[in-house]
Amino acid sequence: MNDKALVAQHAAQKIEDGMIVGLGTGSTANCFIEALAKRHQEGLNIKTIASSMVSAIKARELGLPQIPIEQLSGLDVYVDGADEVTQDMILLKGRGYDLIREKLLAGASREFWVLIDPGKRVGRIGERYPIPVEVIPFAWRLVRESLTAVGGKAELRQTPNQDGLVVTSHGSLVLDTVFPEAFDSRKLDAVLNGIPGVVEHGIFSRLASAVFCAQDGQVEEQWA
Amino acid sequence: MNDKALVAQHAAQKIEDGMIVGLGTGSTANCFIEALAKRHQEGLNIKTIASSMVSAIKARELGLPQIPIEQLSGLDVYVDGADEVTQDMILLKGRGYDLIREKLLAGASREFWVLIDPGKRVGRIGERYPIPVEVIPFAWRLVRESLTAVGGKAELRQTPNQDGLVVTSHGSLVLDTVFPEAFDSRKLDAVLNGIPGVVEHGIFSRLASAVFCAQDGQVEEQWA
Repeated sequence: MNDKALVAQHAAQKIEDGMIVGLGTGSTANCFIEALAKRHQEGLNIKTIASSMVSAIKARELGLPQIPIEQLSGLDVYVDGADEVTQDMILLKGRGYDLIREKLLAGASREFWVLIDPGKRVGRIGERYPIPVEVIPFAWRLVRESLTAVGGKAELRQTPNQDGLVVTSHGSLVLDTVFPEAFDSRKLDAVLNGIPGVVEHGIFSRLASAVFCAQDGQVEEQWA
Repeated sequence: MNDKALVAQHAAQKIEDGMIVGLGTGSTANCFIEALAKRHQEGLNIKTIASSMVSAIKARELGLPQIPIEQLSGLDVYVDGADEVTQDMILLKGRGYDLIREKLLAGASREFWVLIDPGKRVGRIGERYPIPVEVIPFAWRLVRESLTAVGGKAELRQTPNQDGLVVTSHGSLVLDTVFPEAFDSRKLDAVLNGIPGVVEHGIFSRLASAVFCAQDGQVEEQWA
């Protein structure tokens, strides 16, 4: 079993009967959905809520019961991967297309477990990837000005063949933004929250309850 | 001349040749658009950018040159009314339908002049009106839970005949939210900014440059 499957199974084993479980998106989250579906087939009674269309389709194919997000008033645990994780458990997420739904579920959940391998560890958010900032389309230029004013370098995310702009599931554009090293990740979170026209962004601060990290066949748990 | 027309004319007189001027929305903003159009007809060279469809239509009817918001990288002054204004110039806005655009222009502008009469003065934001919180439709229930968790009492805004929900120009729903008296307006601004699923809200903190208040035929200026 590879490390992704291992950490996914470790998380799935901790799910208890009767829980409402949020399903993340991505390759690690996929492993978790498979491990959870296996437990469900063995008799575990759970409900799930997916963070994306892709995960919802996968969950349905594997027979997991789902509840619609519009009627959800809370969940027990949200389980997802991350692109970067700092020592104090701030995350970078959202290189995909369903950033808002992911942050919404992470924020609404009693616990948020993050599944990673050591390759995701960073000293500061933005060390490896630009920070995705979802903007209302008509606001993109003014938001870019605001990002520039606080020291960021922002570019509209293009489609791979560069003939269009990436549109998220919510209909936003994405400004991939690089900040200078000196920026404190938590402060940056508050700054981005306060810019009008920004719908959401990829810094997940004060949301993770636990980071489960798989390495060499072992899973290490870090709790907030 | 009534007080609304007076304060609008006072503001229009301060607009200088070559400026890019943001146009607010509402009865006071309408008076300003009229006063500004008069100056433009007399030869003042300006460009405008409207905060709503209604203001854009009015500006066009009065012959004011407009630039599209998508291509705007900044403006000189944004002029608008407000529903509530505290002594330290925090505002409540957005009982209308174009909250995002209003806050975007207020934030992007070099200066933001707020036109009021003394009836708009309050001790704290939320004293007279609930605070409008624009939410992504699928997130409304989770956001309401988050608002409840910080002490708010939120209700989805309905259409006047109560057979539908109000949808903003951005396609959001509105949670009209009442907070207990003890809440500090600036702190509340940061709390609302940080809730996933909230697109924007009606507290305008640290945005106003000046409040122009008309009373008994006089205009009093307060600068930040």
